[in-house]
Amino acid sequence: MKFMEGVNKMFDRIGVIGSGSGGRAIAGMVANKGYKVTLGYRTKRKVATIKKRKTLEVCGALEKDVKLESVTNNVQNLVENSNIILIVVPANAHDAVIDQIAPYLVDGQIVLLNPGRTWGAINAYNRLKQLRPNLEIFIGETQTLLYTCRAIDDRGVHILKVKDEVDCCFYPESDNILMEDIISEMLPTLNIIDDIRQTSLNNIGSIVHPATVLLNSGAISRQQEFLFYSEGMTRAVVNVLEAIDEERCTVIKRAGLESKSLLQWLGDVYGCYEDNLFDAFRNVSCYADIKAPPKLEMRYVLEDVPTGLVPLASLGDYYGINTPNIDSIIQLASCMFNRDFMNLGRTIDRIGVPEEILHHHIIPDLASYFTEAMFS
Amino acid sequence: MKFMEGVNKMFDRIGVIGSGSGGRAIAGMVANKGYKVTLGYRTKRKVATIKKRKTLEVCGALEKDVKLESVTNNVQNLVENSNIILIVVPANAHDAVIDQIAPYLVDGQIVLLNPGRTWGAINAYNRLKQLRPNLEIFIGETQTLLYTCRAIDDRGVHILKVKDEVDCCFYPESDNILMEDIISEMLPTLNIIDDIRQTSLNNIGSIVHPATVLLNSGAISRQQEFLFYSEGMTRAVVNVLEAIDEERCTVIKRAGLESKSLLQWLGDVYGCYEDNLFDAFRNVSCYADIKAPPKLEMRYVLEDVPTGLVPLASLGDYYGINTPNIDSIIQLASCMFNRDFMNLGRTIDRIGVPEEILHHHIIPDLASYFTEAMFS
Repeated sequence: MKFMEGVNKMFDRIGVIGSGSGGRAIAGMVANKGYKVTLGYRTKRKVATIKKRKTLEVCGALEKDVKLESVTNNVQNLVENSNIILIVVPANAHDAVIDQIAPYLVDGQIVLLNPGRTWGAINAYNRLKQLRPNLEIFIGETQTLLYTCRAIDDRGVHILKVKDEVDCCFYPESDNILMEDIISEMLPTLNIIDDIRQTSLNNIGSIVHPATVLLNSGAISRQQEFLFYSEGMTRAVVNVLEAIDEERCTVIKRAGLESKSLLQWLGDVYGCYEDNLFDAFRNVSCYADIKAPPKLEMRYVLEDVPTGLVPLASLGDYYGINTPNIDSIIQLASCMFNRDFMNLGRTIDRIGVPEEILHHHIIPDLASYFTEAMFS
Repeated sequence: MKFMEGVNKMFDRIGVIGSGSGGRAIAGMVANKGYKVTLGYRTKRKVATIKKRKTLEVCGALEKDVKLESVTNNVQNLVENSNIILIVVPANAHDAVIDQIAPYLVDGQIVLLNPGRTWGAINAYNRLKQLRPNLEIFIGETQTLLYTCRAIDDRGVHILKVKDEVDCCFYPESDNILMEDIISEMLPTLNIIDDIRQTSLNNIGSIVHPATVLLNSGAISRQQEFLFYSEGMTRAVVNVLEAIDEERCTVIKRAGLESKSLLQWLGDVYGCYEDNLFDAFRNVSCYADIKAPPKLEMRYVLEDVPTGLVPLASLGDYYGINTPNIDSIIQLASCMFNRDFMNLGRTIDRIGVPEEILHHHIIPDLASYFTEAMFS
């Protein structure tokens, strides 16, 4: 125990890449625990006050001005000054971030994608193996953002809710046991699980967001306002969401995983138990005030299609399961946005998801692995 | 010539099935020419004044109160009192109408679908062959409605524009030569052409309507008003329309027909020559005032998907041409409307489109056929 405590204290410098609401929230929470946090940004204007004061104004779940070690757009500095790198950007930007940090990573560092969306950690692992074949680092993904939060101007963040428990898994999964204490120390609400498919395939946003945006695209482009969930999810839209979710559940079951329907998920996560999706979306209190996005080009499509729907369609294809509604959303989104999401996105081939994860998922005997690793 | 004039005068009693704007317009125009017209309706309330007065109030291209022979919901009476039956209902109702009139049809009658949408005449021909194998009638289709018009209450119709020329074809095409004079006498703007694929496959409404409705479905369901063409066809929507039109043109070219792009078509039909679809839809004056439909469940989807997009997808499939955007619209519409449009719609198999029309289209030698028919 003493040994691990000593190890954990060595991981005291955190680099957060991404200074949107999620990045600010996680930076504020860990800095408040005493970690030395470097916040990385891309657009100076958006973090001007944070940068000037080296301070995050946090309110909500935490009410405090939190000091940061540094606020920088210099990736090299950030990576070299951190033991743990938290990547908190839309998943469609993961590749670009991995490419940027790759030259500066050193053995033993921890990279956590927050969240990874589907196959985030496997993608990062394989990409780094190509760029830096001999590098030995730890790469993990969380299942979703840890906080419900909103950025406040260029000054801080409002943390509306700390989610009770968010799954987290490293890749390969055998790394989990080495990471568990370090991660729990830093972010206690993270729950390490030993199945990367669980953190990757329960990507609910991708089931809900893209179809709703597409079928409301006229109104969004015309800037006709509506509440995204309670008004955007009309009966016809909900029919499509149900069909997409059914396709997801079929694929997930075929992978040998327990599948939880969107309706069940809304019950479990938000305590909203209704007998149909239409009513459920109208009765989740967290959703009540969420407005439609002000423009089409945002993460509900640009992130959720390539890193959520595309991997599901690809997995369905691998198993010989038809996913016509998912395919249709990918196709129309590609056409509307002039991007070939199917080829840009996270297909099994493009990511290089290993056979054993797809077909005969064997959880390694972690205890014996750990013993071996420690004493060999 | 005298002989044909005599024949034509025998076709002086017209039954119009359908009392919406199109049915009223055609009934008014032919009644005004001296034909005895029976107008068939389904919902009495909608034609109450027309029925009470046996008169259509016509304004616009024709300014006149036009006397009708009869206004009835009795199909048997209508069929038995007509030499020519004009079917002016949404094409997804053709099967039901054919089934209703079938028992009362007699040899020598003319049935004209106005319009037929894709494969309308072939469908009606084959359906009647099954119901009444020995019946010998003439079945034709027009390419589109003959008039731009709007119903006026339960009283009449406003004919905004008589279209310059509308293609018309009978099936089999060898019947055209027998029909030409009779049809031209009754409806001079009809242009008989000898290729049923031309009247069937230039179904522009199906390219334009369903995708625009689906991608604006949220706004339509919420009754957020917008102009269907100039506001509903956003950049993203137009991207989809272009892709669908490209798929249609590829299929049509493969069938050996000249294909005209939607952009060219808008130029030819409306004199609106722009270099892109987005601007073109904003500059067609006829489109300027057309509002979005007040609800989703209307012919832009219910008619245009099964009798326009489904036959195109099916034809593409037959030729081995991918139509992913058309397929996606059919799939999502099926899901949103809870109907299996692909199986309800006009696939090649379901209609029984003959091989020679699909693959080796041979226009019969009409002159020799005619001579033979007259003197044998």
